[in-house]
Amino acid sequence: MEEYPSKLLEKAIQQFNILPGVGRKTALRLALFLLRQPKETANEFGNAFIKLRNEIIYCENCFNISDLPLCTICSSPKREDKVICVVEDIRDVMAIENTSQFRGKYHVLGGIISPMEGIGPSDIRVEELITRVKENGIEEVIMALSTTMEGDTTNFYIYKRLKDYNVLISTLAQGVASGDELEYTDELTLGRSLLNRVPYENSLHS
Amino acid sequence: MEEYPSKLLEKAIQQFNILPGVGRKTALRLALFLLRQPKETANEFGNAFIKLRNEIIYCENCFNISDLPLCTICSSPKREDKVICVVEDIRDVMAIENTSQFRGKYHVLGGIISPMEGIGPSDIRVEELITRVKENGIEEVIMALSTTMEGDTTNFYIYKRLKDYNVLISTLAQGVASGDELEYTDELTLGRSLLNRVPYENSLHS
Repeated sequence: MEEYPSKLLEKAIQQFNILPGVGRKTALRLALFLLRQPKETANEFGNAFIKLRNEIIYCENCFNISDLPLCTICSSPKREDKVICVVEDIRDVMAIENTSQFRGKYHVLGGIISPMEGIGPSDIRVEELITRVKENGIEEVIMALSTTMEGDTTNFYIYKRLKDYNVLISTLAQGVASGDELEYTDELTLGRSLLNRVPYENSLHS
Repeated sequence: MEEYPSKLLEKAIQQFNILPGVGRKTALRLALFLLRQPKETANEFGNAFIKLRNEIIYCENCFNISDLPLCTICSSPKREDKVICVVEDIRDVMAIENTSQFRGKYHVLGGIISPMEGIGPSDIRVEELITRVKENGIEEVIMALSTTMEGDTTNFYIYKRLKDYNVLISTLAQGVASGDELEYTDELTLGRSLLNRVPYENSLHS
Protein backbone atom coordinates (compact mmCIF):
# COMPACT_ATOMS: atom_id res chain seq x y z
CA MET A 1 0.00 0.00 0.00
CA GLU A 2 1.46 3.30 -1.13
CA GLU A 3 1.55 6.24 1.21
CA TYR A 4 -0.06 9.38 -0.08
CA PRO A 5 0.85 12.76 1.36
CA SER A 6 -2.81 13.72 1.76
CA LYS A 7 -5.85 11.97 3.20
CA LEU A 8 -8.13 13.85 0.81
CA LEU A 9 -6.12 12.57 -2.13
CA GLU A 10 -6.09 9.06 -0.73
CA LYS A 11 -9.86 9.16 -0.31
CA ALA A 12 -10.37 10.31 -3.91
CA ILE A 13 -8.05 7.57 -5.13
CA GLN A 14 -9.98 4.96 -3.15
CA GLN A 15 -13.19 6.18 -4.72
CA PHE A 16 -11.90 6.00 -8.30
CA ASN A 17 -10.50 2.60 -7.37
CA ILE A 18 -13.98 1.13 -6.73
CA LEU A 19 -14.78 1.52 -10.43
CA PRO A 20 -14.36 -1.65 -12.50
CA GLY A 21 -11.11 -1.60 -14.46
CA VAL A 22 -9.58 1.32 -12.54
CA GLY A 23 -6.46 0.39 -10.56
CA ARG A 24 -4.71 2.61 -8.03
CA LYS A 25 -2.23 4.04 -10.55
CA THR A 26 -5.02 5.09 -12.90
CA ALA A 27 -7.01 6.37 -9.91
CA LEU A 28 -4.10 8.62 -8.92
CA ARG A 29 -3.78 9.89 -12.50
CA LEU A 30 -7.51 10.68 -12.59
CA ALA A 31 -7.44 12.41 -9.19
CA LEU A 32 -4.51 14.59 -10.30
CA PHE A 33 -6.40 15.39 -13.49
CA LEU A 34 -9.38 16.61 -11.43
CA LEU A 35 -7.07 18.69 -9.25
CA ARG A 36 -5.92 20.56 -12.34
CA GLN A 37 -9.50 21.47 -13.29
CA PRO A 38 -11.36 24.55 -12.05
CA LYS A 39 -13.33 24.01 -8.84
CA GLU A 40 -16.58 24.30 -10.72
CA THR A 41 -15.66 21.40 -12.99
CA ALA A 42 -14.83 19.19 -10.01
CA ASN A 43 -18.09 20.14 -8.28
CA GLU A 44 -20.11 19.39 -11.40
CA PHE A 45 -18.25 16.11 -11.75
CA GLY A 46 -19.00 14.94 -8.22
CA ASN A 47 -22.59 16.16 -8.21
CA ALA A 48 -23.50 14.40 -11.46
CA PHE A 49 -23.09 11.00 -9.80
CA ILE A 50 -24.86 11.97 -6.58
CA LYS A 51 -27.78 13.30 -8.61
CA LEU A 52 -27.79 10.28 -10.90
CA ARG A 53 -28.00 7.78 -8.06
CA ASN A 54 -30.49 9.72 -5.96
CA GLU A 55 -32.85 10.99 -8.60
CA ILE A 56 -32.89 8.30 -11.26
CA ILE A 57 -36.18 6.52 -11.80
CA TYR A 58 -37.06 3.40 -13.68
CA CYS A 59 -39.91 3.13 -16.19
CA GLU A 60 -42.82 1.54 -14.34
CA ASN A 61 -43.67 -0.59 -17.35
CA CYS A 62 -40.33 -1.86 -18.71
CA PHE A 63 -37.90 -0.85 -15.91
CA ASN A 64 -35.54 0.91 -18.26
CA ILE A 65 -33.72 3.95 -16.84
CA SER A 66 -35.93 6.97 -17.37
CA ASP A 67 -36.54 10.58 -16.37
CA LEU A 68 -40.31 10.07 -16.33
CA PRO A 69 -42.52 7.36 -14.80
CA LEU A 70 -43.04 5.98 -18.31
CA CYS A 71 -39.99 5.85 -20.60
CA THR A 72 -39.99 7.31 -24.10
CA ILE A 73 -40.30 3.88 -25.71
CA CYS A 74 -43.20 2.70 -23.52
CA SER A 75 -45.07 5.96 -24.00
CA SER A 76 -44.57 6.03 -27.77
CA PRO A 77 -47.77 5.33 -29.75
CA LYS A 78 -45.62 4.04 -32.62
CA ARG A 79 -44.40 0.96 -30.75
CA GLU A 80 -46.22 -2.37 -30.84
CA ASP A 81 -47.78 -3.33 -27.52
CA LYS A 82 -47.92 -7.08 -27.91
CA VAL A 83 -44.24 -7.93 -28.41
CA ILE A 84 -41.75 -7.70 -25.54
CA CYS A 85 -38.00 -8.01 -25.91
CA VAL A 86 -36.36 -9.15 -22.67
CA VAL A 87 -32.87 -7.72 -22.05
CA GLU A 88 -30.38 -7.55 -19.21
CA ASP A 89 -29.77 -3.80 -19.03
CA ILE A 90 -30.07 -0.47 -20.76
CA ARG A 91 -26.98 -1.07 -22.90
CA ASP A 92 -28.80 -3.91 -24.63
CA VAL A 93 -31.80 -1.64 -25.21
CA MET A 94 -29.48 0.88 -26.85
CA ALA A 95 -27.76 -1.78 -28.95
CA ILE A 96 -31.09 -3.14 -30.23
CA GLU A 97 -32.52 0.35 -30.83
CA ASN A 98 -29.45 1.08 -32.97
CA THR A 99 -30.41 -1.75 -35.34
CA SER A 100 -33.84 -0.13 -36.03
CA GLN A 101 -35.15 -3.68 -36.43
CA PHE A 102 -37.42 -3.86 -33.40
CA ARG A 103 -40.69 -1.97 -33.05
CA GLY A 104 -42.05 -3.59 -29.89
CA LYS A 105 -41.35 -2.75 -26.28
CA TYR A 106 -38.69 -3.92 -23.83
CA HIS A 107 -38.48 -5.53 -20.45
CA VAL A 108 -35.25 -4.69 -18.64
CA LEU A 109 -34.40 -7.41 -16.11
CA GLY A 110 -31.72 -5.32 -14.43
CA GLY A 111 -29.43 -8.33 -14.20
CA ILE A 112 -29.15 -11.96 -15.07
CA ILE A 113 -29.48 -15.12 -12.97
CA SER A 114 -26.01 -16.03 -11.73
CA PRO A 115 -25.70 -18.61 -8.96
CA MET A 116 -21.94 -17.85 -8.85
CA GLU A 117 -22.61 -14.22 -7.92
CA GLY A 118 -25.60 -15.09 -5.76
CA ILE A 119 -28.11 -13.46 -8.09
CA GLY A 120 -31.38 -15.41 -8.15
CA PRO A 121 -34.69 -14.89 -9.97
CA SER A 122 -36.03 -12.71 -7.15
CA ASP A 123 -33.12 -10.26 -7.58
CA ILE A 124 -34.13 -9.40 -11.13
CA ARG A 125 -37.47 -8.31 -12.57
CA VAL A 126 -38.89 -11.68 -13.61
CA GLU A 127 -42.17 -11.46 -11.65
CA GLU A 128 -42.88 -8.12 -13.26
CA LEU A 129 -42.39 -9.75 -16.69
CA ILE A 130 -44.82 -12.58 -15.84
CA THR A 131 -47.38 -10.01 -14.68
CA ARG A 132 -46.98 -8.00 -17.91
CA VAL A 133 -47.47 -11.11 -20.03
CA LYS A 134 -50.49 -12.22 -17.98
CA GLU A 135 -52.26 -8.91 -17.83
CA ASN A 136 -51.59 -7.37 -21.23
CA GLY A 137 -52.26 -10.17 -23.68
CA ILE A 138 -48.66 -10.26 -24.87
CA GLU A 139 -48.25 -12.35 -28.03
CA GLU A 140 -44.48 -12.77 -28.20
CA VAL A 141 -41.60 -12.59 -25.75
CA ILE A 142 -38.20 -12.35 -27.42
CA MET A 143 -35.38 -13.43 -25.13
CA ALA A 144 -32.37 -11.25 -26.00
CA LEU A 145 -29.81 -12.16 -23.34
CA SER A 146 -26.10 -12.85 -23.67
CA THR A 147 -25.24 -16.31 -24.98
CA THR A 148 -23.43 -17.19 -21.77
CA MET A 149 -24.23 -19.79 -19.15
CA GLU A 150 -25.98 -17.11 -17.07
CA GLY A 151 -27.97 -16.02 -20.11
CA ASP A 152 -28.98 -19.61 -20.86
CA THR A 153 -30.01 -20.17 -17.24
CA THR A 154 -32.13 -17.03 -17.23
CA ASN A 155 -33.69 -17.96 -20.58
CA PHE A 156 -34.62 -21.39 -19.26
CA TYR A 157 -36.05 -20.06 -16.01
CA ILE A 158 -38.23 -17.52 -17.82
CA TYR A 159 -39.27 -20.14 -20.38
CA LYS A 160 -40.45 -22.45 -17.58
CA ARG A 161 -42.42 -19.65 -15.98
CA LEU A 162 -44.07 -18.55 -19.23
CA LYS A 163 -44.66 -21.77 -21.12
CA ASP A 164 -48.18 -22.32 -19.79
CA TYR A 165 -49.36 -18.94 -20.98
CA ASN A 166 -50.52 -18.46 -24.52
CA VAL A 167 -47.42 -16.61 -25.66
CA LEU A 168 -44.75 -17.32 -28.26
CA ILE A 169 -41.29 -17.40 -26.68
CA SER A 170 -38.40 -16.83 -29.08
CA THR A 171 -34.68 -16.17 -28.77
CA LEU A 172 -32.20 -14.32 -30.94
CA ALA A 173 -30.81 -16.36 -33.82
CA GLN A 174 -27.34 -17.70 -33.09
CA GLY A 175 -24.89 -18.18 -35.90
CA VAL A 176 -21.91 -16.85 -37.77
CA ALA A 177 -21.59 -13.07 -37.38
CA SER A 178 -21.67 -10.79 -40.42
CA GLY A 179 -18.17 -10.44 -41.84
CA ASP A 180 -16.79 -13.48 -39.98
CA GLU A 181 -14.45 -15.89 -41.70
CA LEU A 182 -15.54 -19.50 -41.20
CA GLU A 183 -12.11 -20.83 -40.33
CA TYR A 184 -11.92 -18.51 -37.32
CA THR A 185 -15.46 -19.18 -36.08
CA ASP A 186 -15.61 -21.31 -32.94
CA GLU A 187 -16.96 -24.86 -33.27
CA LEU A 188 -20.03 -24.34 -31.13
CA THR A 189 -21.18 -21.34 -33.13
CA LEU A 190 -20.44 -23.02 -36.46
CA GLY A 191 -22.22 -26.20 -35.37
CA ARG A 192 -25.31 -24.29 -34.29
CA SER A 193 -25.36 -22.26 -37.46
CA LEU A 194 -25.45 -25.53 -39.43
CA LEU A 195 -28.24 -27.01 -37.30
CA ASN A 196 -30.26 -23.81 -37.55
CA ARG A 197 -29.64 -23.22 -41.24
CA VAL A 198 -32.30 -21.24 -43.05
CA PRO A 199 -33.67 -21.39 -46.60
CA TYR A 200 -31.45 -19.20 -48.77
CA GLU A 201 -34.37 -16.97 -49.77
CA ASN A 202 -34.94 -16.11 -46.09
CA SER A 203 -31.38 -14.82 -45.77
CA LEU A 204 -32.05 -12.27 -48.50
CA HIS A 205 -34.37 -10.21 -46.27
CA SER A 206 -31.67 -8.69 -44.16
CA MET B 1 -24.21 10.81 -30.70
CA GLU B 2 -26.17 8.11 -28.94
CA GLU B 3 -29.51 8.89 -27.42
CA TYR B 4 -29.85 8.06 -23.77
CA PRO B 5 -33.26 7.55 -22.21
CA SER B 6 -32.40 9.82 -19.27
CA LYS B 7 -30.83 13.26 -18.97
CA LEU B 8 -29.36 12.36 -15.58
CA LEU B 9 -27.63 9.37 -17.09
CA GLU B 10 -26.41 11.43 -20.02
CA LYS B 11 -24.98 14.02 -17.65
CA ALA B 12 -23.13 11.36 -15.63
CA ILE B 13 -21.75 9.86 -18.84
CA GLN B 14 -20.54 13.28 -19.97
CA GLN B 15 -18.78 13.74 -16.65
CA PHE B 16 -16.97 10.40 -16.76
CA ASN B 17 -16.15 11.23 -20.36
CA ILE B 18 -14.04 14.27 -19.37
CA LEU B 19 -11.53 11.93 -17.70
CA PRO B 20 -8.47 11.10 -19.78
CA GLY B 21 -8.76 7.65 -21.35
CA VAL B 22 -12.48 7.26 -20.66
CA GLY B 23 -14.64 7.08 -23.79
CA ARG B 24 -18.43 7.19 -23.91
CA LYS B 25 -18.83 3.41 -23.84
CA THR B 26 -16.69 3.08 -20.73
CA ALA B 27 -18.46 6.10 -19.23
CA LEU B 28 -21.82 4.36 -19.67
CA ARG B 29 -20.45 1.19 -18.09
CA LEU B 30 -19.14 3.17 -15.10
CA ALA B 31 -22.41 5.09 -14.69
CA LEU B 32 -24.40 1.83 -14.70
CA PHE B 33 -21.98 0.42 -12.14
CA LEU B 34 -22.66 3.39 -9.85
CA LEU B 35 -26.40 2.95 -10.32
CA ARG B 36 -26.11 -0.58 -8.95
CA GLN B 37 -24.38 0.67 -5.78
CA PRO B 38 -26.21 1.80 -2.61
CA LYS B 39 -27.01 5.51 -2.53
CA GLU B 40 -24.48 6.04 0.21
CA THR B 41 -21.68 4.68 -1.97
CA ALA B 42 -22.62 7.00 -4.81
CA ASN B 43 -22.78 9.99 -2.46
CA GLU B 44 -19.40 9.17 -0.98
CA PHE B 45 -18.03 8.75 -4.49
CA GLY B 46 -19.23 12.13 -5.70
CA ASN B 47 -18.30 13.98 -2.52
CA ALA B 48 -14.73 12.67 -2.46
CA PHE B 49 -13.89 14.65 -5.60
CA ILE B 50 -15.72 17.79 -4.53
CA LYS B 51 -13.88 17.71 -1.20
CA LEU B 52 -10.55 16.94 -2.86
CA ARG B 53 -10.73 19.87 -5.23
CA ASN B 54 -12.11 22.37 -2.73
CA GLU B 55 -10.10 21.51 0.35
CA ILE B 56 -6.75 20.37 -0.97
CA ILE B 57 -3.79 22.49 -0.02
CA TYR B 58 -0.24 22.57 -1.27
CA CYS B 59 2.83 22.53 0.96
CA GLU B 60 4.00 26.13 1.25
CA ASN B 61 7.63 25.06 0.97
CA CYS B 62 7.72 22.41 -1.78
CA PHE B 63 4.18 22.70 -3.28
CA ASN B 64 3.48 19.01 -2.96
CA ILE B 65 -0.14 18.04 -2.26
CA SER B 66 -0.64 18.11 1.48
CA ASP B 67 -3.23 18.16 4.26
CA LEU B 68 -1.19 20.62 6.31
CA PRO B 69 0.54 23.90 5.38
CA LEU B 70 3.86 22.03 5.57
CA CYS B 71 3.96 18.53 4.05
CA THR B 72 5.26 15.51 5.95
CA ILE B 73 8.56 15.53 4.04
CA CYS B 74 9.24 19.25 4.53
CA SER B 75 8.40 19.06 8.22
CA SER B 76 10.51 15.96 8.86
CA PRO B 77 13.67 16.65 10.89
CA LYS B 78 15.30 13.61 9.26
CA ARG B 79 15.44 15.14 5.79
CA GLU B 80 18.41 17.17 4.56
CA ASP B 81 17.63 20.86 4.07
CA LYS B 82 20.27 21.74 1.53
CA VAL B 83 19.42 19.41 -1.33
CA ILE B 84 16.32 19.95 -3.44
CA CYS B 85 15.01 17.49 -6.00
CA VAL B 86 12.90 19.22 -8.68
CA VAL B 87 10.02 17.14 -10.05
CA GLU B 88 6.95 17.68 -12.19
CA ASP B 89 4.24 16.34 -9.90
CA ILE B 90 3.38 14.25 -6.86
CA ARG B 91 3.68 10.96 -8.80
CA ASP B 92 7.39 11.64 -9.26
CA VAL B 93 7.75 12.37 -5.55
CA MET B 94 6.13 9.00 -4.81
CA ALA B 95 8.31 7.19 -7.36
CA ILE B 96 11.50 8.67 -5.90
CA GLU B 97 10.38 8.07 -2.30
CA ASN B 98 9.86 4.41 -3.23
CA THR B 99 13.55 4.07 -4.11
CA SER B 100 14.55 5.16 -0.56
CA GLN B 101 17.64 6.72 -2.19
CA PHE B 102 16.87 10.37 -1.56
CA ARG B 103 17.01 12.06 1.82
CA GLY B 104 16.66 15.70 0.77
CA LYS B 105 13.52 17.68 0.05
CA TYR B 106 11.49 18.24 -3.09
CA HIS B 107 10.25 21.06 -5.22
CA VAL B 108 7.08 20.20 -7.13
CA LEU B 109 6.79 22.36 -10.24
CA GLY B 110 3.19 21.35 -10.86
CA GLY B 111 3.84 21.02 -14.59
CA ILE B 112 6.53 21.30 -17.19
CA ILE B 113 7.30 23.98 -19.77
CA SER B 114 5.50 23.04 -22.98
CA PRO B 115 5.20 25.66 -25.72
CA MET B 116 2.92 23.24 -27.61
CA GLU B 117 0.39 23.26 -24.78
CA GLY B 118 0.94 26.93 -23.98
CA ILE B 119 2.58 26.25 -20.62
CA GLY B 120 5.34 28.77 -19.92
CA PRO B 121 7.70 29.27 -16.97
CA SER B 122 5.17 31.52 -15.20
CA ASP B 123 2.57 28.71 -15.19
CA ILE B 124 4.74 26.45 -13.07
CA ARG B 125 6.53 27.09 -9.77
CA VAL B 126 9.94 28.19 -11.06
CA GLU B 127 10.08 31.56 -9.25
CA GLU B 128 9.36 29.80 -5.98
CA LEU B 129 12.31 27.48 -6.65
CA ILE B 130 14.66 30.40 -7.35
CA THR B 131 13.51 32.04 -4.10
CA ARG B 132 14.11 28.84 -2.13
CA VAL B 133 17.61 28.49 -3.57
CA LYS B 134 18.42 32.15 -2.91
CA GLU B 135 17.09 32.36 0.61
CA ASN B 136 17.97 28.98 2.11
CA GLY B 137 21.58 28.41 1.12
CA ILE B 138 20.69 25.38 -1.00
CA GLU B 139 23.79 23.42 -2.04
CA GLU B 140 22.43 21.14 -4.73
CA VAL B 141 19.43 21.15 -7.05
CA ILE B 142 18.76 17.78 -8.67
CA MET B 143 16.68 18.08 -11.82
CA ALA B 144 14.47 14.96 -11.96
CA LEU B 145 12.18 15.65 -14.92
CA SER B 146 11.08 13.35 -17.71
CA THR B 147 13.65 12.88 -20.48
CA THR B 148 11.32 14.42 -23.06
CA MET B 149 11.66 17.59 -25.07
CA GLU B 150 9.51 19.40 -22.50
CA GLY B 151 11.66 18.06 -19.68
CA ASP B 152 14.84 19.17 -21.46
CA THR B 153 13.39 22.63 -22.08
CA THR B 154 12.41 23.00 -18.44
CA ASN B 155 15.82 21.74 -17.28
CA PHE B 156 17.57 24.28 -19.49
CA TYR B 157 15.36 27.17 -18.38
CA ILE B 158 15.92 26.41 -14.72
CA TYR B 159 19.66 25.91 -15.32
CA LYS B 160 19.88 29.37 -16.91
CA ARG B 161 18.02 30.94 -14.00
CA LEU B 162 20.17 29.21 -11.34
CA LYS B 163 23.64 29.10 -12.85
CA ASP B 164 24.78 32.38 -11.29
CA TYR B 165 23.98 31.23 -7.79
CA ASN B 166 26.47 29.18 -5.84
CA VAL B 167 24.57 25.92 -6.25
CA LEU B 168 25.40 22.59 -7.86
CA ILE B 169 22.86 21.69 -10.54
CA SER B 170 22.69 18.00 -11.40
CA THR B 171 20.36 15.78 -13.39
CA LEU B 172 19.42 12.11 -13.14
CA ALA B 173 21.87 9.74 -14.83
CA GLN B 174 20.61 8.56 -18.21
CA GLY B 175 21.53 5.14 -19.48
CA VAL B 176 20.47 1.58 -19.98
CA ALA B 177 17.72 0.54 -17.54
CA SER B 178 18.27 -2.32 -15.09
CA GLY B 179 17.33 -5.60 -16.73
CA ASP B 180 17.37 -4.18 -20.27
CA GLU B 181 18.86 -6.15 -23.12
CA LEU B 182 21.27 -4.10 -25.18
CA GLU B 183 19.93 -5.15 -28.56
CA TYR B 184 16.51 -3.70 -27.70
CA THR B 185 17.81 -0.45 -26.22
CA ASP B 186 17.20 2.60 -28.42
CA GLU B 187 20.23 4.21 -30.07
CA LEU B 188 19.99 7.50 -28.23
CA THR B 189 19.97 5.84 -24.82
CA LEU B 190 22.74 3.43 -25.75
CA GLY B 191 24.85 6.26 -27.20
CA ARG B 192 24.43 8.38 -24.07
CA SER B 193 25.21 5.47 -21.80
CA LEU B 194 28.50 5.01 -23.68
CA LEU B 195 29.38 8.70 -23.50
CA ASN B 196 28.55 8.81 -19.78
CA ARG B 197 30.21 5.53 -18.89
CA VAL B 198 31.40 5.25 -15.29
CA PRO B 199 34.39 3.50 -13.70
CA TYR B 200 33.38 -0.10 -13.01
CA GLU B 201 34.00 0.28 -9.29
CA ASN B 202 31.40 3.08 -9.14
CA SER B 203 28.73 0.78 -10.57
CA LEU B 204 29.21 -1.59 -7.64
CA HIS B 205 27.58 0.85 -5.19
CA SER B 206 24.02 0.31 -6.30
